[in-house]
Amino acid sequence: MTSKQLLRRAGLVTLLTSAAAAPATTHGEPDMPRHKRHQGVAATHESAHAALRSVPLSAVRMGDGFWKARMERNRKAGIPRLLALLEEHGAVENFRVAAGLSSAERRGPYFSDSDLFKWMEGAAYVVHLYPDDPTAAELQRVVDDVVAAQCDDGYLNTFFIKDIADQRFRNLMAEHEFYCAGHLIHAACAHYRATGSTKLLDAARRYADYLCSVFGPDKRYGRSGHEELEAAMVELYRTTGDGKYLHFAGYLLDGLEFHNRSELRGHAVRQGYFCMGGADYYIETGDAQYWDTLTRLFDDLVRRKMYITGGMGAQQHHEAFGAAYQLPNATAYAETCAAISNVLWNRRMLLAEPNCRYADVLERALYNGVLSGVSLSGDEYFYVNPLASSGGHKRQPWFGCTCCPTNMVRTLASIPSYLYDVSDGGVWVHLYDNSTLSWQLPDGRALTLQQQTGYPWDGRVEMTVTPQAASEFSVFLRIPGWCRKARLEVNGKAVADVRCGTYKEIRREWKPGDTLALQMDMPAEIVESHPRVPENRGCVAIQRGPVVYCIESPDNPGLPIEDARLATASPAELSARHEPDLLGGVTVITGPGLAPAGVLDELPLYAPVGTYDRAARMREVRLRAIPYYAWANRGDSHMKIWLPLGSQ
Amino acid sequence: MTSKQLLRRAGLVTLLTSAAAAPATTHGEPDMPRHKRHQGVAATHESAHAALRSVPLSAVRMGDGFWKARMERNRKAGIPRLLALLEEHGAVENFRVAAGLSSAERRGPYFSDSDLFKWMEGAAYVVHLYPDDPTAAELQRVVDDVVAAQCDDGYLNTFFIKDIADQRFRNLMAEHEFYCAGHLIHAACAHYRATGSTKLLDAARRYADYLCSVFGPDKRYGRSGHEELEAAMVELYRTTGDGKYLHFAGYLLDGLEFHNRSELRGHAVRQGYFCMGGADYYIETGDAQYWDTLTRLFDDLVRRKMYITGGMGAQQHHEAFGAAYQLPNATAYAETCAAISNVLWNRRMLLAEPNCRYADVLERALYNGVLSGVSLSGDEYFYVNPLASSGGHKRQPWFGCTCCPTNMVRTLASIPSYLYDVSDGGVWVHLYDNSTLSWQLPDGRALTLQQQTGYPWDGRVEMTVTPQAASEFSVFLRIPGWCRKARLEVNGKAVADVRCGTYKEIRREWKPGDTLALQMDMPAEIVESHPRVPENRGCVAIQRGPVVYCIESPDNPGLPIEDARLATASPAELSARHEPDLLGGVTVITGPGLAPAGVLDELPLYAPVGTYDRAARMREVRLRAIPYYAWANRGDSHMKIWLPLGSQ
Repeated sequence: MTSKQLLRRAGLVTLLTSAAAAPATTHGEPDMPRHKRHQGVAATHESAHAALRSVPLSAVRMGDGFWKARMERNRKAGIPRLLALLEEHGAVENFRVAAGLSSAERRGPYFSDSDLFKWMEGAAYVVHLYPDDPTAAELQRVVDDVVAAQCDDGYLNTFFIKDIADQRFRNLMAEHEFYCAGHLIHAACAHYRATGSTKLLDAARRYADYLCSVFGPDKRYGRSGHEELEAAMVELYRTTGDGKYLHFAGYLLDGLEFHNRSELRGHAVRQGYFCMGGADYYIETGDAQYWDTLTRLFDDLVRRKMYITGGMGAQQHHEAFGAAYQLPNATAYAETCAAISNVLWNRRMLLAEPNCRYADVLERALYNGVLSGVSLSGDEYFYVNPLASSGGHKRQPWFGCTCCPTNMVRTLASIPSYLYDVSDGGVWVHLYDNSTLSWQLPDGRALTLQQQTGYPWDGRVEMTVTPQAASEFSVFLRIPGWCRKARLEVNGKAVADVRCGTYKEIRREWKPGDTLALQMDMPAEIVESHPRVPENRGCVAIQRGPVVYCIESPDNPGLPIEDARLATASPAELSARHEPDLLGGVTVITGPGLAPAGVLDELPLYAPVGTYDRAARMREVRLRAIPYYAWANRGDSHMKIWLPLGSQ
Repeated sequence: MTSKQLLRRAGLVTLLTSAAAAPATTHGEPDMPRHKRHQGVAATHESAHAALRSVPLSAVRMGDGFWKARMERNRKAGIPRLLALLEEHGAVENFRVAAGLSSAERRGPYFSDSDLFKWMEGAAYVVHLYPDDPTAAELQRVVDDVVAAQCDDGYLNTFFIKDIADQRFRNLMAEHEFYCAGHLIHAACAHYRATGSTKLLDAARRYADYLCSVFGPDKRYGRSGHEELEAAMVELYRTTGDGKYLHFAGYLLDGLEFHNRSELRGHAVRQGYFCMGGADYYIETGDAQYWDTLTRLFDDLVRRKMYITGGMGAQQHHEAFGAAYQLPNATAYAETCAAISNVLWNRRMLLAEPNCRYADVLERALYNGVLSGVSLSGDEYFYVNPLASSGGHKRQPWFGCTCCPTNMVRTLASIPSYLYDVSDGGVWVHLYDNSTLSWQLPDGRALTLQQQTGYPWDGRVEMTVTPQAASEFSVFLRIPGWCRKARLEVNGKAVADVRCGTYKEIRREWKPGDTLALQMDMPAEIVESHPRVPENRGCVAIQRGPVVYCIESPDNPGLPIEDARLATASPAELSARHEPDLLGGVTVITGPGLAPAGVLDELPLYAPVGTYDRAARMREVRLRAIPYYAWANRGDSHMKIWLPLGSQ
């Protein structure tokens, strides 16, 4: 038995991925004795605000299916290629430079440490699931380099070395030391859980101790310019049991005036991480004001500021949210990191309150705005994810600011953590894909839950529930908000009152081998957006299950993508067909369209109403739509999600 | 007789405003002897590419009407208030500081000199028309301050003084010395023409000589970061007859790779000034490659990148043009200066080629995107001119970067220069308003042309043509592109073949007192935009004559402006009524509209098609539309130009 297994068995590893913040502390596990906790917070508050407990990453085994294929490409192509690029661009050597082990010049942006740390977090998840993967040795080597660069007082950042070593923290707003520290801590917690080694965790903790000694209410004033450290400090509290880190997270969030926020504004990734940190803090403290703010910001997101892809950030300028309903398509920024931050935030919302709406947003982002950020090959990335393109948009293996690729590899590596949770009441199924959960309820009753499905292409999911011994508990199944009708059978017998957009609780005495069959109707849907979204007025999008569709030029030869329209508002006129050999296997949707017979380029910009319809002389065409996430995998192309409806 | 009148009589003043670049050089006036001209350019080329000659500012007397009211408010309120603010913010004292006459610290942005120069140019136009206006003394005082600050070698810029005096031209791309120099030259030429004094002109010329001695093909490399000097150097060539300035303008334009431009991109004001400079250079040199570029860029503007208001610059970021058809409304930048640059550019295009399309764009910008930039009181300004607003957008007397207010005062002061031109063939009428032209044809035949009209509210214009003696020449009347049907009578007799969007030439022997009556049909029109403009899809705008309309909350109490729609595509269902007491006298348009009975705020962002129409339950309303330029004069308001059409 490896030390890792020992740790897990002993209940020491209660948290699994940084994306899976469990309310472990509410149950008094041995690693977090009550007397060590954040002093201002009573245990009952903690318990009251963490409804679900995450399961270890390794408790979920992905079967062949949608996500496993992507995880494998990430593990075999993405992770090694990105490490090679990080090496090539100095992001690893910088630590040897800082340690005095290399005489090279430091290279890369001032926040390049964070890129390596995100890669390390992703590598830790890989090693957690595949201890024998070549990544393990690479990760060990990188950990050694990072740790060697730590200063005697705990400070650890490769930018402020040599002649500017005395200028630490000179500009927290712009120079991102807190942000880098946060990613170090997240990577360290993941590394500890994956390997049982405390080497990186000890270093991260020493740095955190140093930060806590320098900044605080009676010390130097410190506030994140780019949020991340807030959530990381909560995670470090969970991992070590030391309440001062939670306290420090609260100090940071107070400095950012968490309670005063009423809308999402500014840099989208920072806002997402800000909310993630606030949700983590709420989960541990139960501070009702935090929850008020979080739900208010969630409402602002889903009602006014989120792309249909789950993307966030309408404008390139400052990589920021736009005003309410300002969701331009071709000029959308929708940074990959922002969609990931949306997933991270809503994962925590879901842990705090198992409300289907959080899982709906998480799933929407994951299958669309996040997944569009990586090529089918698994090793090229988008930084910006527009919803329409007239060409020239290409994924790349690396960027000058390479935050998105490193964020993507850690996200894909952590996928199993998003599928299941447990609670006192039973087991929760959030996402559907071929997989097996082997874990236990909080009271120790072991169980296995196995899924068999063609999701997201097929709405049928067959599950087998196998408790170690027959026993009463609940299975909570998410009936997604995208679904309009679902049927559920237990051991072949229909279950009543299955409502979409909720979790369906099936409480009974479960016996080994009991079956669940969930049938979610999954027709192609035609969706419109709120009439106040200026660019989508008169337009519709196609969605099927959680997958948002687009039309792309390679599938529609001869069609002017920019001018194409959908000819019907009736979903019944759309056909879906699975094409296993296309784009790694996708369901393609075809439907009646319209395209101008005439050339529109030379028409005037403004003209009396009716001019364009007369000039365009619409012809009937057949549109072929593919999942948005799969676009831009066949060379330069034109693409759009939102289709003008009818002949207008 | 004043010295100014002497100069004008002597034919020395052939150019009138910087916005009126006449091909005077093509006729060998005494101030520009042929042997002094730009050596590489033959006189025939100059003549061939300058079809029209502008008339002196003072040759046009505005009668009571649309523009005179605005000019008067500009003269009595705008000009004095802005000078007081320029004084208050140090823009005048900076010159005394630079001259060593004040011990104060220099204040304001590094380009603040340009703001004063633009005010001076405007003041010169005022003094040109009203020599006894209090502005004359103020201008004289400011001229003295400016001239006193000139260095011995001719350099004149208040930013690079004292401890950075030796750092002149250290960063031409960012620090705008060329831009400031250009505005000095334009102000100096206007001042010379207005007063006959060469004091400021001499200083500007010394500075120009210094620039020509430092920069050039065999000297230091110099290129504008913010265009303006190019046109100014051409203007200085016209004013002084010294070809080296024209040559230098060509050097600057070459450095900017004028010929290689194929589309408008980047900072909109700079692009506009760039085109203005290129057009000025073309007018003097007849370089066919310049004309190719200019017409290509004009096409890009009017086909893909101009707002219906004549505004330019879709995005806040870099104050820049967006991509083709990217013309968002609420987030439009459409800087006032950019609309002014559009007028300046197209004024020169029109001089080069009297094609109605240039005057159409000029007029569209003037009545809408320029005029929206100033309050009805004449002394508060917009920097940004959005086409829709949900409140919070207010004109201000001053901005940290106060380019737009100073640009506005010089533009309003120069209005008379835009109405008329002459050519060998006769007299040209570009814009309609109550006014009297008293000038002469190039061959010296004196004439008077008087307009009587209620334009832009009324499409009828009555003109009286009074040559000194009966004589044959042409009157060229612009039949605007916005007009769909026009009728014309000479001495009560109908003229055939009056085509909209062209200049109608009426060649005959004109006798004193001959009359012209132009009747332009001016119904309210419903306009749509090219279907590729994403934000205007399914929307229409109301336009009447050259005036673009909007709906604004003060006129539509209880109406949710954001959600309001126009219920008809038939212009016949709109009613126009002049309201002399509203907003300084405007024609109001009313028509059938729709507004949601339900509240839309809480509706989801995305939903199955049909959801919103069901939820909104449209009710019939009466929409009341006002000219766009007049919005935001009654406190905080909501406004939009583009109205979704019908119930969709």
